[in-house]
Amino acid sequence: MTQQQLTETLFAAKKQKGLRFADLETQLGRDEVWIAALFYGQASASAEEAEILGRALDLDAGAVGALQDYPLKGLGPMVPTDPLIYRFYEILQVYGMPLKAIIQEKFGDGIMSAIDFSMDVEKQSDPKGDRVHISMSGKFLPYKKW
Amino acid sequence: MTQQQLTETLFAAKKQKGLRFADLETQLGRDEVWIAALFYGQASASAEEAEILGRALDLDAGAVGALQDYPLKGLGPMVPTDPLIYRFYEILQVYGMPLKAIIQEKFGDGIMSAIDFSMDVEKQSDPKGDRVHISMSGKFLPYKKW
Amino acid sequence: MTQQQLTETLFAAKKQKGLRFADLETQLGRDEVWIAALFYGQASASAEEAEILGRALDLDAGAVGALQDYPLKGLGPMVPTDPLIYRFYEILQVYGMPLKAIIQEKFGDGIMSAIDFSMDVEKQSDPKGDRVHISMSGKFLPYKKW
Amino acid sequence: MTQQQLTETLFAAKKQKGLRFADLETQLGRDEVWIAALFYGQASASAEEAEILGRALDLDAGAVGALQDYPLKGLGPMVPTDPLIYRFYEILQVYGMPLKAIIQEKFGDGIMSAIDFSMDVEKQSDPKGDRVHISMSGKFLPYKKW
Amino acid sequence: MTQQQLTETLFAAKKQKGLRFADLETQLGRDEVWIAALFYGQASASAEEAEILGRALDLDAGAVGALQDYPLKGLGPMVPTDPLIYRFYEILQVYGMPLKAIIQEKFGDGIMSAIDFSMDVEKQSDPKGDRVHISMSGKFLPYKKW
Amino acid sequence: MTQQQLTETLFAAKKQKGLRFADLETQLGRDEVWIAALFYGQASASAEEAEILGRALDLDAGAVGALQDYPLKGLGPMVPTDPLIYRFYEILQVYGMPLKAIIQEKFGDGIMSAIDFSMDVEKQSDPKGDRVHISMSGKFLPYKKW
Amino acid sequence: MTQQQLTETLFAAKKQKGLRFADLETQLGRDEVWIAALFYGQASASAEEAEILGRALDLDAGAVGALQDYPLKGLGPMVPTDPLIYRFYEILQVYGMPLKAIIQEKFGDGIMSAIDFSMDVEKQSDPKGDRVHISMSGKFLPYKKW
Amino acid sequence: MTQQQLTETLFAAKKQKGLRFADLETQLGRDEVWIAALFYGQASASAEEAEILGRALDLDAGAVGALQDYPLKGLGPMVPTDPLIYRFYEILQVYGMPLKAIIQEKFGDGIMSAIDFSMDVEKQSDPKGDRVHISMSGKFLPYKKW
Amino acid sequence: MTQQQLTETLFAAKKQKGLRFADLETQLGRDEVWIAALFYGQASASAEEAEILGRALDLDAGAVGALQDYPLKGLGPMVPTDPLIYRFYEILQVYGMPLKAIIQEKFGDGIMSAIDFSMDVEKQSDPKGDRVHISMSGKFLPYKKW
Amino acid sequence: MTQQQLTETLFAAKKQKGLRFADLETQLGRDEVWIAALFYGQASASAEEAEILGRALDLDAGAVGALQDYPLKGLGPMVPTDPLIYRFYEILQVYGMPLKAIIQEKFGDGIMSAIDFSMDVEKQSDPKGDRVHISMSGKFLPYKKW
Repeated sequence: MTQQQLTETLFAAKKQKGLRFADLETQLGRDEVWIAALFYGQASASAEEAEILGRALDLDAGAVGALQDYPLKGLGPMVPTDPLIYRFYEILQVYGMPLKAIIQEKFGDGIMSAIDFSMDVEKQSDPKGDRVHISMSGKFLPYKKW
Repeated sequence: MTQQQLTETLFAAKKQKGLRFADLETQLGRDEVWIAALFYGQASASAEEAEILGRALDLDAGAVGALQDYPLKGLGPMVPTDPLIYRFYEILQVYGMPLKAIIQEKFGDGIMSAIDFSMDVEKQSDPKGDRVHISMSGKFLPYKKW
Repeated sequence: MTQQQLTETLFAAKKQKGLRFADLETQLGRDEVWIAALFYGQASASAEEAEILGRALDLDAGAVGALQDYPLKGLGPMVPTDPLIYRFYEILQVYGMPLKAIIQEKFGDGIMSAIDFSMDVEKQSDPKGDRVHISMSGKFLPYKKW
Repeated sequence: MTQQQLTETLFAAKKQKGLRFADLETQLGRDEVWIAALFYGQASASAEEAEILGRALDLDAGAVGALQDYPLKGLGPMVPTDPLIYRFYEILQVYGMPLKAIIQEKFGDGIMSAIDFSMDVEKQSDPKGDRVHISMSGKFLPYKKW
Repeated sequence: MTQQQLTETLFAAKKQKGLRFADLETQLGRDEVWIAALFYGQASASAEEAEILGRALDLDAGAVGALQDYPLKGLGPMVPTDPLIYRFYEILQVYGMPLKAIIQEKFGDGIMSAIDFSMDVEKQSDPKGDRVHISMSGKFLPYKKW
Repeated sequence: MTQQQLTETLFAAKKQKGLRFADLETQLGRDEVWIAALFYGQASASAEEAEILGRALDLDAGAVGALQDYPLKGLGPMVPTDPLIYRFYEILQVYGMPLKAIIQEKFGDGIMSAIDFSMDVEKQSDPKGDRVHISMSGKFLPYKKW
Repeated sequence: MTQQQLTETLFAAKKQKGLRFADLETQLGRDEVWIAALFYGQASASAEEAEILGRALDLDAGAVGALQDYPLKGLGPMVPTDPLIYRFYEILQVYGMPLKAIIQEKFGDGIMSAIDFSMDVEKQSDPKGDRVHISMSGKFLPYKKW
Repeated sequence: MTQQQLTETLFAAKKQKGLRFADLETQLGRDEVWIAALFYGQASASAEEAEILGRALDLDAGAVGALQDYPLKGLGPMVPTDPLIYRFYEILQVYGMPLKAIIQEKFGDGIMSAIDFSMDVEKQSDPKGDRVHISMSGKFLPYKKW
Repeated sequence: MTQQQLTETLFAAKKQKGLRFADLETQLGRDEVWIAALFYGQASASAEEAEILGRALDLDAGAVGALQDYPLKGLGPMVPTDPLIYRFYEILQVYGMPLKAIIQEKFGDGIMSAIDFSMDVEKQSDPKGDRVHISMSGKFLPYKKW
Repeated sequence: MTQQQLTETLFAAKKQKGLRFADLETQLGRDEVWIAALFYGQASASAEEAEILGRALDLDAGAVGALQDYPLKGLGPMVPTDPLIYRFYEILQVYGMPLKAIIQEKFGDGIMSAIDFSMDVEKQSDPKGDRVHISMSGKFLPYKKW
């Protein structure tokens, strides 16, 4: 079972059950963004998490096992063409250097971890048009000197 | 005066004055991330904003004028090598498709605007290591049908 | 059913029925360019639109359902080799910067939306050779300051 | 005098004179988009056009001569990072294949010329937000058989 | 039937019949280069031309129909590795700018059309080694001003 | 003296003298395309040829010497953006494989030399629009077996 | 039968027969490097050579016929990752310009042919470690002037 | 003194002295290919070698010192456009996999060193056209197991 | 049996047997990193090693034979997107030039071999978080002069 | 003062003083690899460290200040051509996936930090040829779930 097959299996099962990621969030006790990452093989489940998902989505043992593997991460391509995903790339092009300047001024020489990291997406109602609100939280890692 | 010269002038003046972006935020009434974007030519100032900055940083008339131009945006390269900036690119590689799945489930077919958009950076103290907290807010734009 | 299979199914059904996009425009009440975008998975149909198309083209339930999905957009490659499509890329190479200069002079710092956007194609008879007339209409989005 | 120097000279002179492209359109009897293309070396002026521009912008003889040259066209890069210009590239990614399908259905096998071509940009007032309206007109060129 | 399958079918039929492109040129009344382009889906046949080829090569109705389609053109890759094809790319690298200089001096600002275009290949016997003689004829298209 | 400086010097001198490449063809006894290639450093002159050109264009000794050097050839970039030059690249994309098929059918396994090669450009008057006529002649080189 | 299938068939047959390229060199009267190139579709056999190989390797008629085709050459990718092949690419990176300088000093403006070309590989015993000895011989082709 | 300046200085001095690489080979006791590599900064001289070259070419102390540095190697670009150098790249494209097959059959799993490596270029007179003869000798390095 | 199939077979067998690479290290007398490289076709086994692995993992004769082949090495892509692998690429971006400076200062002009090379991975317990410890040992190869 | 100027200043001062990185290691109490990284702007000094280096190398105040900045990291290019640096890239190509397999088996889903990271280079004498010994130590960072 390749990762792509697993991803298709998971999305098909979710569609058939009529579940939203928010429903899985309730059942699994994990954020919906993390669960979507798991669907794409960008995160890996514990045995217990895999079994809860397996029951929620009627998965067979092979899929339950595969949810615990660590596939190659990164969904590339280098520069995304999908407009929704590209906008995040553009934010990086336009605001990447300013972000670096601000983070270094506040924290010193180092990075925000993309591993000890979480992300949340919310819908904010607004009469001028709803807004997507994204918050990211990553541990600051200072460069080690030796 | 090229954009690169303007950027260098602005950073040198800020260093000489001993100002932080947070200080400029207070004087200008704009968020420090936006001001850093202005330093890199990724945003443009109104005449009034340019003059406030000009006084704060002792800029000459040429620099004050150049702050109001609209240069080519995008700080490239395609795939950044700086570790701090790359982490954001990696987040896009790892969590881009999950983000798309969540946003489309919540909002329908469309994108989060990178233009009607703002971003905030905060330092969160944490005994296990300080955390970088970033929040982004972008208007949801549904695809027009015609 | 992959997007490519759906696209092939749609084009084959349209050919078999002897329909032109202009005929589908009449039945669906949507512009033919938008319908062609739907054929390629670059737009998504409402349930009602999908059913009208399903009847017009004798599609099965799977195809009718797939018309409502949101696939990855962008038909790549980065630089198109097909001469008809390349000409639009060349227009961007030659007239992209002039367009930016004119739009910014008329509107200020911002972009023309590619989401709140529509496009129309017409054939203009001309004794020196027919002309392709394309009109695009996109909402102007000014850069938010914060 | 390189093309880049000529471009900078032209924009500086236009700024100093307080002229808009629309003003030059009136004086030169050419569309403002075409004039902006001339500023970037993507079009070439006749001797008469160069002299009118020379008078309007107080150019020296070298600049007037250079306006009549044919520099290398194409303002690259391959994939633009400036958000305003990128949106046109994205339109090509999303609607390029649909455009091909519509144009070939209406005209047969061939292309829309990017040489026997003109383009117009207008500002349309709209209470929900002004719109950029672009119209393109290119001669249809059918593929020659031999 | 994909274009690649059609191409393979055509070449296999031609091999089985023991025909050379020059033979097809006689039967079809089209140049052999154009016919080879048709084999690769870079040109499209009229209904009559498709039927003549169908009879000459014993094609079934599906192939005869497919010869009249307009597939995506361009046989890529960007830089060819096959030595025979690369030499033409090298000619473009070495003599492209000189060609531009000569054509512009003779014709003014414009291009040689690759659409209203034909090409011929001949074998010239030569005691020092046979020569490939290629002649290209393309309509000159002057840049439109507007 | 870099090749770029030499190229600029040669074009400036030719402009000042009011000479066309066709005039230099007469004086030098070499085809105008070859002379334009020499201007761009894609060909190298003999001492005698360099001196004739030096007298025709009033070059100094350094330029006359540099005309006899062998600079790095290839005017790149990989994919040209200038429309006039791109059309030749497009011809290669569209007709490259057909050319290979025809040449191999006529000559066997081998290539057309781009070294033992000459090229000619002519203007053909035509009431429907003048045509660019290009003829190329290259020695066929069969693959050596060993 | 694709080229890849032919290559796999040839290597499998050679393995089953327990033959080395040196054995095929003896039977065919061609150098082992050339025979390996034939295995990869980078060279083409005469009818007689194909039949000798067919007998030596028990090939069927399809394979014997396919050995006489002229497939697309070039085994890509652009920059090889296999360490053995990369070393030759590195030699080109490090010694390419020096080679050009030496060859041009000895021969004038031109190239070493890669078509009228042969190559030989030998094993040289050496107490400090065996050495790979490669000799290449290519016809010098002077640039034609016209 | 950058490497490029050093390279230009060395070639200018060699030209002024009227020396060929073969003359430097005699004075230095090193092969002319290696000396050309030294000119391009792809090899480094011992103090003694640098002084001999310094005397032969009338170099100043700075150049003599710089000849002993170890600059970044590799003369790029990834795919060369110069026809003389490209032919070696093409040889790698066409004969790289065959070379790998032959070397592995003769030596086992490993590579030919590009470091413990030497190369020689000779001119072979031939009535059908002179030939370039290149011989390479590199130590075979078997893959270490651990 | 392609390399990818062999890799999948080996990982599946290892999973079914409940073996860790450390267990195979004990049985085979080779380091676990080398064994993992063998799983991916980046190293080749002797007949004896292949048989021990075959018994440990219940492989059939085809797999045992394939373990002794020499496939194309290099697992690409050019720039890895998997975060674990990318970190090593980043180390090369950040510390590559410093490494070159240190190695050349200690050893002179040459390289560390990637062929006569071994690598070891250990887990170091640490109260502040376990650490990955990697040691590499490669023979220094000085550049040969000739 | 650009980073490149700072790098050149530092190397020139170190050469003039006749210091090795090992000498600076003694004076600064930091590893020589880290100091070389500082020379290339890949690390940043504290005020105290910058002053010690400033005294050791007779730097002016501008250089001492610049040592404390945080420049853009990453020394590019994407794929290095220098043989010494390329070998590390090759190790990543050949052993990257095996490393991932081993690290994940030992530690679970996560990465080795390139920030909380140190590296050491030693020369090991060996009668068969000296060896480069490199040890890397990076904190293991497990993927956060949320």
